[in-house]
Amino acid sequence: MEKPTLPAGTRDFGPATMAKRQFILERIRKVFQIYGFQPLETPAMENLSTLTGKYGEEGDQLLFRILNSGDFLKGIDGQKLESKDSKRISSAIAEKGLRYDLTVPFARYVVMNRNEISFPFKRYQIQPVWRADRPQKGRYREFYQCDADVVGTDSLLCEAEIILMIKEVFKNLGIKDYTIKINHRSILGGVAEIAGVKEKEMALFVAIDKLDKIGEEKVKDELRSKGFSEQVLTSLFEAINVKGSTKNKLALLMSRFDASETGKKGLRDLQEVLNYLAYYGETDEHVEFDIALARGLSYYTGCIFEVKINNVSVGSVSGGGRYDNLTKAFGDKSNLSGVGFSFGVDRLFDAMEELAIFPQEAQLSSKVLICHFDEASLVYGVGVLAKLRSAGIASEIYPQHAKINKQLDFGNKKRVPYVIVIGSDEVASGSLTLKNMVTGDQQKLTIDQIIANLR
Amino acid sequence: MEKPTLPAGTRDFGPATMAKRQFILERIRKVFQIYGFQPLETPAMENLSTLTGKYGEEGDQLLFRILNSGDFLKGIDGQKLESKDSKRISSAIAEKGLRYDLTVPFARYVVMNRNEISFPFKRYQIQPVWRADRPQKGRYREFYQCDADVVGTDSLLCEAEIILMIKEVFKNLGIKDYTIKINHRSILGGVAEIAGVKEKEMALFVAIDKLDKIGEEKVKDELRSKGFSEQVLTSLFEAINVKGSTKNKLALLMSRFDASETGKKGLRDLQEVLNYLAYYGETDEHVEFDIALARGLSYYTGCIFEVKINNVSVGSVSGGGRYDNLTKAFGDKSNLSGVGFSFGVDRLFDAMEELAIFPQEAQLSSKVLICHFDEASLVYGVGVLAKLRSAGIASEIYPQHAKINKQLDFGNKKRVPYVIVIGSDEVASGSLTLKNMVTGDQQKLTIDQIIANLR
Repeated sequence: MEKPTLPAGTRDFGPATMAKRQFILERIRKVFQIYGFQPLETPAMENLSTLTGKYGEEGDQLLFRILNSGDFLKGIDGQKLESKDSKRISSAIAEKGLRYDLTVPFARYVVMNRNEISFPFKRYQIQPVWRADRPQKGRYREFYQCDADVVGTDSLLCEAEIILMIKEVFKNLGIKDYTIKINHRSILGGVAEIAGVKEKEMALFVAIDKLDKIGEEKVKDELRSKGFSEQVLTSLFEAINVKGSTKNKLALLMSRFDASETGKKGLRDLQEVLNYLAYYGETDEHVEFDIALARGLSYYTGCIFEVKINNVSVGSVSGGGRYDNLTKAFGDKSNLSGVGFSFGVDRLFDAMEELAIFPQEAQLSSKVLICHFDEASLVYGVGVLAKLRSAGIASEIYPQHAKINKQLDFGNKKRVPYVIVIGSDEVASGSLTLKNMVTGDQQKLTIDQIIANLR
Repeated sequence: MEKPTLPAGTRDFGPATMAKRQFILERIRKVFQIYGFQPLETPAMENLSTLTGKYGEEGDQLLFRILNSGDFLKGIDGQKLESKDSKRISSAIAEKGLRYDLTVPFARYVVMNRNEISFPFKRYQIQPVWRADRPQKGRYREFYQCDADVVGTDSLLCEAEIILMIKEVFKNLGIKDYTIKINHRSILGGVAEIAGVKEKEMALFVAIDKLDKIGEEKVKDELRSKGFSEQVLTSLFEAINVKGSTKNKLALLMSRFDASETGKKGLRDLQEVLNYLAYYGETDEHVEFDIALARGLSYYTGCIFEVKINNVSVGSVSGGGRYDNLTKAFGDKSNLSGVGFSFGVDRLFDAMEELAIFPQEAQLSSKVLICHFDEASLVYGVGVLAKLRSAGIASEIYPQHAKINKQLDFGNKKRVPYVIVIGSDEVASGSLTLKNMVTGDQQKLTIDQIIANLR
């Protein structure tokens, strides 16, 4: 029999990785809850009628489709089969697909439960999604998304709270050097308007979204090839290249946007978000107004966010923005405005590994391993174990007789930080030796002293 | 556009349900960790070669299969297609399937990572599984499993620790009236041996496994139809119907099992499990030796467990046992003995609902909602909000201007337990009114007093 393998683009998360992932997710979840967001989970499988047409043609091709159960070919037209037209046949033999993101299932949930939900509705959702992408470094076919959205209000307080949550999550994760880029769809619109290229604004946004990656000259080349004049390019990049603090940039642009109501609306919105931060007692440290941030393009309608950790090789670890009508794709006309953002758990993980900032507590093995020389020591050790655990100290005993070196070796491999070795002396005296496996230090202590030490 | 629906047999878990599910899962996870178990997650998709042949023919038919990506019909033999043989064609167009349980992926993980794992390996795994079962009340096509296993040791301390963990989880969940039934494959073997029906023991186990459901007479009928003589039946049920405390039953059976080494081995094992409980300082309260417990049959090789909550309408909420060779199905000959058990999260949920024992804290909405009369109160409220949250109190503010009744109504619907209403008086004085939404009580307090009250 061949050794089993994993499907391409999927991963196991063993204990060491899981401990660190749980560390990240628990801290995110905690912040979501403190901010009044409530959890939602939706099924992995959705009807394909729910999923298709929501992610563009490319997205539809990346959906994992689930073969109908039972005799799925029964009733399929023979001619259709002979055509070997995979696309047509797939829709006849597969009615369900795997979740591609968390937004469409959320919208589906809101439409189905409109009457029970109290709006504004703050929900968070942490679940895996699946995409039949070509697997490559850092891109997986199964990965977690971690979304939080508020729908049913257009209050800019929500945007401010997103910034606050990002700051708090990063503080709790120990990430110190990062930038929350913020922009507004209407400011981008204003830039297009004052440059007189409103009708070509989508081409403009697509191009300036690449500024980070390909640089100003190549973006200009792309815009030239799309028919933008030199005069327009000059006007555009004057606006784009406004430098200074967020406050200064807002003021400078306000004077330039005299002719664009759209642009001014965007600037006022951003200013209000900053005001809310101040009311909350928070500065705009880490927050950077970046007029070249375009993100998502057609989808977002208000503020846009993107978060980068500085001096690491991973891309943005969080992003989001305001959208106009969450449930429109399901024919719902209630115009539910919302704003949301999401953390990229894999990238956060990679960044924290690169920075080597996972704390000791993100190890999650037992804290203590009890080793023993003989039957009587094992029995005595089980009593010690009970006391450690009832004090809330994760611990275990080597469960069978074995040479003491084998037991210690086991503890080392599992990276258990403390070992208690029990022999006949310890059983007789009740005085135990606590060994620190990292430093090698040993101390003779009673069980109560050990518990006090380790807590 | 039609209203979207959920695939049959799947569910959304909205905030109220999620809060209770998280309450259950967090408490289980905590106990697993205190006992030194480490987390593992495996991908939702496995190669079908990993899954098929592991769950019997019926299980294979219940696997959800994932259509290959792209032009999946390319290269498929035309004749094969014309045959419309769904089974044959499915294996050609679907190479992956969804996880059916957590045991096979765990075994696959162990085989693939043998050299990195330190044995004995204690892992827990909490993830959804999928089965294309006919949906019906209480049976879903997606549901969570929650497994813990120790592999690489045959120490009976592990069996004792399973009992301890079940007791601790139930204590933490507030479940008081329950029974942990325990038996041993070798005791069942001994019963067959002393009745002289060793060669028909599987038929015997299948029948007595139904005792609970269909009663003694019908089980006897079934055994008669399988050729068991009246004399054998009498001898069998004498052993099965031994009454009394676990200790008494063990002693009585030991005398009857004089002629069966197998049976005596089983009894000695159970006795040792009870001894370990005593060394741990725990009684055998809730533990019941049930000689008619057969569970799983061919799979288990040692102790068997099954847990029922008394006086509720749901079936067993936990079960497990010892097995011989976890990785044999993958051609691995290392003979990794293991013992594991799992909690049925859906059933635990139903039982706790039926007993109405979910505590207030399993609500997970915000604890405080801040309402406001005007712009200045909202701004002031944002400052109050910041203080509550930095004290770790989950809270929110109604994010926009609205009539005060609408805001209070929102708090009521979300079941937020406390409301702070802010108007110009509060802004001027800093003295806030904290309203208990359940009792209707109101108190004038400073923000510091409110924090002290709510913590």
